[in-house]
Amino acid sequence: MAEKSPRVQSVSDAFRVDPESFDLAGVDPAATPVGPRSKAAAARDLAVVGEELDRLQEALYAEGVGGGTRRVLLVLQGMDTSGKGGTIRHVAGLVNPQGLRIASFKKPTRAELRHDFLWRIRRQVPPPGHIGVFDRSHYEDVLVARVDNLVPATEWQRRYRRINAFERELADEGVTIVKCFLHISPERQRDRLIARLEDPLKRWKYNPADLGARGKFSRYQVAYRDALVKCSTPAAPWFAVPSDRKWYRNWVVARLLLEALRGLAPAYPQPSYDPAVELARLRDADPLR
Amino acid sequence: MAEKSPRVQSVSDAFRVDPESFDLAGVDPAATPVGPRSKAAAARDLAVVGEELDRLQEALYAEGVGGGTRRVLLVLQGMDTSGKGGTIRHVAGLVNPQGLRIASFKKPTRAELRHDFLWRIRRQVPPPGHIGVFDRSHYEDVLVARVDNLVPATEWQRRYRRINAFERELADEGVTIVKCFLHISPERQRDRLIARLEDPLKRWKYNPADLGARGKFSRYQVAYRDALVKCSTPAAPWFAVPSDRKWYRNWVVARLLLEALRGLAPAYPQPSYDPAVELARLRDADPLR
Repeated sequence: MAEKSPRVQSVSDAFRVDPESFDLAGVDPAATPVGPRSKAAAARDLAVVGEELDRLQEALYAEGVGGGTRRVLLVLQGMDTSGKGGTIRHVAGLVNPQGLRIASFKKPTRAELRHDFLWRIRRQVPPPGHIGVFDRSHYEDVLVARVDNLVPATEWQRRYRRINAFERELADEGVTIVKCFLHISPERQRDRLIARLEDPLKRWKYNPADLGARGKFSRYQVAYRDALVKCSTPAAPWFAVPSDRKWYRNWVVARLLLEALRGLAPAYPQPSYDPAVELARLRDADPLR
Repeated sequence: MAEKSPRVQSVSDAFRVDPESFDLAGVDPAATPVGPRSKAAAARDLAVVGEELDRLQEALYAEGVGGGTRRVLLVLQGMDTSGKGGTIRHVAGLVNPQGLRIASFKKPTRAELRHDFLWRIRRQVPPPGHIGVFDRSHYEDVLVARVDNLVPATEWQRRYRRINAFERELADEGVTIVKCFLHISPERQRDRLIARLEDPLKRWKYNPADLGARGKFSRYQVAYRDALVKCSTPAAPWFAVPSDRKWYRNWVVARLLLEALRGLAPAYPQPSYDPAVELARLRDADPLR
């Protein structure tokens, strides 16, 4: 029952962004530096990871019911087709949906734009005991906002510090933050965009504006690099996840989530009642009778 | 790919509450009137149901992305240990979490109590394209509120019509509502409460107040019967789901969800762009170059 997934080199260590030395250009989106070397091996490991995730998630949920405040927030960012949706399906799909909260951040509405950029984010922070997943996030406000000049440079430049302060605050409230940049190559993006256009069941995922963003691929890489370097903090590290291979991307994110939960070591709460007394009530003085 | 789940007698027809003739005392919580007769057979069918649910859910999600307003809301109600959590794990767990929104309604907070009883419910209605699941719901306001005299009788009596009007309004906005009463026997509840108390990993699910509610089992049955009869409408039918057998309960709810999605027959949206033009742009004038 307490069987553990096989040990592998710490995936967190392998992919964590160190602001001092990080070089995005040096990260190969097709690399598989640690862990399984094949799709089949990754699938086998994912099944084991899923079982341990399930146990840890239930303990975290129970801890929350018992008054604990800890929770996990997985942030997914990446260019179009990098696999944010696929990661949610295959990684978030491993856990019990009752303890999961998914939030997707699209282009802000007019109502959202009337507030500070963190306003809509705060409303979606997962409650205690839960695993939250952000499909895009407040990082859009230093990515598309910067590349498309949606705000003055002085504004987006100021946001890195605001983001770090916000994430520090979340961490202080018990939120373990795992931020994943799903890193794909422009060639792989092209293949996936073509695949979306060729398959009638995938065309809904495509938007002609995607090509506009693709035309700014290198400017996005600069914006991502800055976001990763300026906002990879001990309280909320960034991980650069090679995402040209879907199976590897899913495996890495699942392992990062697992390592975060293991680090928390969530514990079932001590009951606030005496189980023996309650059992006696049920057996000898069942209130139903 | 378009393989359909095997036909069974309509589960909706078998379990829908007809206000004219419904007799809760006549519903056997251990019955298995339609569908599989064993846990193994139910598990086999559930796997097939899961695949069809997955396809229909993706089409519904795509429809929402394309501007559609339709969505599904599954409401789960039942006495303690009836299996609301288990149903979420095993039925909601069949679909892609990206298109799922789970909302749990606990005892209202003081802030919530300052508002109308439907206020906190409205905020959790699933967005277009999504499947929402309510773990408890606005029905608590005619159940515990009535049994424990939390409001005057004139107030809870007025709520049935308010609920019907609210659900009618949701239906008009494109929400297909499926309400499941997970019906268990007092004997089975006793077994499950004992199991929770005996297993250290389940004790967090137990609350001494559960015995208080158990002592009012028959008053709750009256309150449930009235809620089911007064609020099973064409726009938002109630289903009385025999829930003494977990595998049967899960199978019934999964089938009810499947029938609701089949009834919607969600359709992938027509692209608002010309795929051939976009393919040509990518192949001959890739903006990246």
